[in-house]
Amino acid sequence: MDEDIIEKLIEQFRTLPGVGYKTAQRYAFSIIEGKRERAERFSAAILEAKEKIGFCKICGNFTDKEICPICQNRNRKVVCVVKEPKDILAMEKVKTYDGVYHVLFGTISPLERRGPEDLKIKELLKRVSEDGVEEVIMATNPDVEGDATALYIARLLSPLGVKVTRLAQGVSMGSELEYADEITLSKAMDGRQEIK
Amino acid sequence: MDEDIIEKLIEQFRTLPGVGYKTAQRYAFSIIEGKRERAERFSAAILEAKEKIGFCKICGNFTDKEICPICQNRNRKVVCVVKEPKDILAMEKVKTYDGVYHVLFGTISPLERRGPEDLKIKELLKRVSEDGVEEVIMATNPDVEGDATALYIARLLSPLGVKVTRLAQGVSMGSELEYADEITLSKAMDGRQEIK
Repeated sequence: MDEDIIEKLIEQFRTLPGVGYKTAQRYAFSIIEGKRERAERFSAAILEAKEKIGFCKICGNFTDKEICPICQNRNRKVVCVVKEPKDILAMEKVKTYDGVYHVLFGTISPLERRGPEDLKIKELLKRVSEDGVEEVIMATNPDVEGDATALYIARLLSPLGVKVTRLAQGVSMGSELEYADEITLSKAMDGRQEIK
Repeated sequence: MDEDIIEKLIEQFRTLPGVGYKTAQRYAFSIIEGKRERAERFSAAILEAKEKIGFCKICGNFTDKEICPICQNRNRKVVCVVKEPKDILAMEKVKTYDGVYHVLFGTISPLERRGPEDLKIKELLKRVSEDGVEEVIMATNPDVEGDATALYIARLLSPLGVKVTRLAQGVSMGSELEYADEITLSKAMDGRQEIK
């Protein structure tokens, strides 16, 4: 067993999120035991993605163009603000949404010493004032940092006269009330809607 | 979001054992969001491992040489027979073992249509008769296929006059009797040893 070369590969797999030594080892062995073409495809896909995929100049989405297809083709009057590019992928499951996005690249976090100046907030304000945006939907995560960031940005936006909304918070579809935490339940109670 | 390039990378990560779409996506995003140097190192490590690591001509272990360091430096009179190269890594935790290994590259499995002729059994018999092997330790997995394969090989070896042993089976260290299955318990009972 040549420890160095295999260990080097295991080390690389360990840099993936949530991967410990044992899992990284399994991944490495699967590469070594697999076909050469598979290793070549794998290796090339990593390089290609890193080389060609960058961030959209307008919204911060992943793209291999200067401006992503969403910014090019959709309604720029509605902007959905998310924490990270991958949140766009999640939001895109809402097939009826026709607006565009804005990635903050983080949330305000005093613990991690990340202030408003570290996020793409200036860029958002500029878009709102220059593009005639009518609604900004705050879709940061439903946690303390996400809420604080949403509130902070909403206050900055209010002088611009734009409508600012936040994703509804409540009990998740398919979950069981028995296991819902008290904050989720009280948010669901506060946001209750009349059945018509 | 350029679906094609990112999807291609996600697809590659999905070929890893036990990785579903969501996990593959997380891995892919971590590559795209990470540094260029990391992607380059990762990509190179995959290619290097696949290009340089092969199987030892004697025992079947992973190695970047013709003959692995274990076969070169250790006692060839004792051979530990395992199913796969990665089992050698597990067995090497037994620091007191000074013998060599022999990888079968599988176990006899009628269900998966794998017979004795698909395994490196001929090669094992050749080693045993030519190298003056004194003991063969069957370290195939403690399951039905592993047991059957061990028994099959032991019968082939018996005319050669070599001692054939099998890893002891019983309750695992640190486990709880309460949760042990009945086969494990009866094997532990059968193999019980006197406390001296």
